[in-house]
Amino acid sequence: LRADLGKVVGAEHVLAGDTREYLHDSTDTRGVHGRADAVVLPGTAEEAAAVLAWCYERGVPITPRGGGTGYAGGAVPLGGVVLSLERLTRVRSFDPLLWRIEVEAGVRTGEVRRLARESGLFFPPDPGGSEQSQIGGNIATNAGGPHAFKYGVTGKWVTGLEAAIAPGELVRTGGPLRKDAAGYDLKALLVGSEGTLGIVTAAWLRLLPAPEAVHPAVGFYPDARAGCDAVLRVVGSGLEAAALEYLDAGTLAAAGPSYPGRIPAGAGFAVIAEADGSQDEAARLRDELLSVLGEGALGTGTPSPAELWRWRDGLVFAVIAKRGGKLGEDIAVPLDRLAEAIEESVALGRRHGFETVSWGHAGDGNLHTNFLVDPTDPEELARAERAGEELFELALRLGGTVSGEHGLGLLKRGHAGWTPRVAALQQAIKDAFDPKGLLNPGKKL
Amino acid sequence: LRADLGKVVGAEHVLAGDTREYLHDSTDTRGVHGRADAVVLPGTAEEAAAVLAWCYERGVPITPRGGGTGYAGGAVPLGGVVLSLERLTRVRSFDPLLWRIEVEAGVRTGEVRRLARESGLFFPPDPGGSEQSQIGGNIATNAGGPHAFKYGVTGKWVTGLEAAIAPGELVRTGGPLRKDAAGYDLKALLVGSEGTLGIVTAAWLRLLPAPEAVHPAVGFYPDARAGCDAVLRVVGSGLEAAALEYLDAGTLAAAGPSYPGRIPAGAGFAVIAEADGSQDEAARLRDELLSVLGEGALGTGTPSPAELWRWRDGLVFAVIAKRGGKLGEDIAVPLDRLAEAIEESVALGRRHGFETVSWGHAGDGNLHTNFLVDPTDPEELARAERAGEELFELALRLGGTVSGEHGLGLLKRGHAGWTPRVAALQQAIKDAFDPKGLLNPGKKL
Repeated sequence: LRADLGKVVGAEHVLAGDTREYLHDSTDTRGVHGRADAVVLPGTAEEAAAVLAWCYERGVPITPRGGGTGYAGGAVPLGGVVLSLERLTRVRSFDPLLWRIEVEAGVRTGEVRRLARESGLFFPPDPGGSEQSQIGGNIATNAGGPHAFKYGVTGKWVTGLEAAIAPGELVRTGGPLRKDAAGYDLKALLVGSEGTLGIVTAAWLRLLPAPEAVHPAVGFYPDARAGCDAVLRVVGSGLEAAALEYLDAGTLAAAGPSYPGRIPAGAGFAVIAEADGSQDEAARLRDELLSVLGEGALGTGTPSPAELWRWRDGLVFAVIAKRGGKLGEDIAVPLDRLAEAIEESVALGRRHGFETVSWGHAGDGNLHTNFLVDPTDPEELARAERAGEELFELALRLGGTVSGEHGLGLLKRGHAGWTPRVAALQQAIKDAFDPKGLLNPGKKL
Repeated sequence: LRADLGKVVGAEHVLAGDTREYLHDSTDTRGVHGRADAVVLPGTAEEAAAVLAWCYERGVPITPRGGGTGYAGGAVPLGGVVLSLERLTRVRSFDPLLWRIEVEAGVRTGEVRRLARESGLFFPPDPGGSEQSQIGGNIATNAGGPHAFKYGVTGKWVTGLEAAIAPGELVRTGGPLRKDAAGYDLKALLVGSEGTLGIVTAAWLRLLPAPEAVHPAVGFYPDARAGCDAVLRVVGSGLEAAALEYLDAGTLAAAGPSYPGRIPAGAGFAVIAEADGSQDEAARLRDELLSVLGEGALGTGTPSPAELWRWRDGLVFAVIAKRGGKLGEDIAVPLDRLAEAIEESVALGRRHGFETVSWGHAGDGNLHTNFLVDPTDPEELARAERAGEELFELALRLGGTVSGEHGLGLLKRGHAGWTPRVAALQQAIKDAFDPKGLLNPGKKL
């Protein structure tokens, strides 16, 4: 196997199957690890397609891999070949005056954002871990992030894709086009398909002129109920925040000490809103947001955006530090059920004996409720899994989804709550793209 | 057939198959008419699913129909049953404070926009004919319009769908949720599927706070080349216009007399840009747009938005009036190929002996190039069809698509330029949803 694949990509680009860093993703904090027979690092899209062809002919499972920052186990291999896109790092074209860029799958998300910014543009999606995560993986999971509230998730910024499709061919759908109403939307199918329909090798992305100014505003509240009331007031006032985030009491307790500002005594919930636009506009909107957030608040603040988002990005590490691991989900509910979802999800974790913390994308109704665990304790992990299944039930009961932005991966399949007809359609789509079931098997469906 | 279907929807809601207004859409201006065995008007989504079930069991083709404003013949029946959604007009829920609405498929697009506006909100998609077109049809074609430049096409505003799916069941995908990363995106597949995968019966739509002010700016140029330079300058300056439209010389000649303002002598091309936002912001952006549009212009103008868009919406009628009919397409190309595409498409029509006019959504690279025809002259229509096929070739040669916003319908299928593998995937998706091929047969694929 390794010798054969070495002929496709060069022997030095085939690693042993037990190369540890390719056997897990961010779910190692809940003890999830996989196994593989080989790790293959193609250098071009054509090589990626050739690896797929080789595997497809021989019935070898293939697990595509981006930066490995996923929280659903989507990149955890269950045997066969891991295909890492890390060497596909070319920026194929960049037309700042036309607001578009074509990048290969292995380009880091942070690099796309940096390139855009250097030309006065802006790539809005900002999932966490942008220095590690790759654009191909972001597309394969339709990654979200704080600014999805105003700007939408990754898929909204993809105008074209190149992907290796079974039995081993590169196909292109869309391109440097802003509109396309021809066929069924293959691009939208590949987005969020978690490597189970094809392997994204490159993408055309749409960019926007960068906002002149970005001004966050933060409100602190005694509890989730008061904080969620503030979230609903912001939305109900028709203020178009760029981001609208929350942190609950447990999250504030874990990450509060490094917050770039003062947290009022008694704060059990925080709401972060952000204004962006021209200098004048962003300042005016920030003041309006502050005034709405201020009602019923214990205090408000206006940290610098750079400090605030660095802190916000890092809070997952502060949370993990408490017990060494966490089991977290990303359920999403209609906005009017947000307070209920936060309160019930935290109560649920505590009922199972876990210290439980919750933060997330309030404006999108997207919760990250996390049970803190010791990742080396099998009993605790098994108990947390059961609690996690109750989180899924909660999401469906509130009219929501088991995944707002991480995908189903390995860990959530079977929990999506589909009717038999919807499940059959999902399977039929899988079969259309991957009749042998070799693309990231054991994931999503 | 009519008696049986009468038992499903009530005899008074089954019309004769030769009821003329159900046998064509806006392509009657190019002489396209269909035939049907019956026209059925279900009163609920459940009745729509029951009609589908009845047809599916008996192998009867079924053509779903919205407002009939399509330009690709997608609603033209080729026999069997026409299922019109016109009686599904309920607004199922409207939560202005949460920026969302759930409407049935037969609600007019203009009604959705009006309801939103009455609550200080905004439903951005604005395809033409909003008082006739229905939201279900807009979704089935993923309709665009001038403001898609800033706000995107219809599908971007759909968060959930209810659809009747073969063999005759209502399914729901998404809902009042802003994010969902669970299954393959069935919603995105149904959007733009032109009634060939299922029949949209209701939709959850996302709304936005309405901009305080809307200020258009118009520039007039001697020719397409100078006008397209202005379009590229607007984009390259990083000015985020809400709409960025063009009209060529022939369009100005036909519709110019009713333009709400003065058109400078010698104008052979016009560019409409629009600024929106807060009062201050929209005024500032309009001034910046005017300044960029002014370079190399014969003149500029700032008509009132209401008058301008009423005129813009009506220009298709001014064009049709010239010879009684038109054959038009909606190819889209990368923005840097816009000038080439406009010039070559007009030259192509003239080469075939047609008076040819072109207008469209410049910022999205989306052209409406139209050949003026006498719709009662079969020779002329056949010649125009051949010229239309050359338009498709032009679009593909320039790296574009044969349809930016109208869909493939009856008239463009076979011209999308797919590779065999992409065509096979398209067909496999169709087979997954509609194994008997009874949903709008002869369309799209």
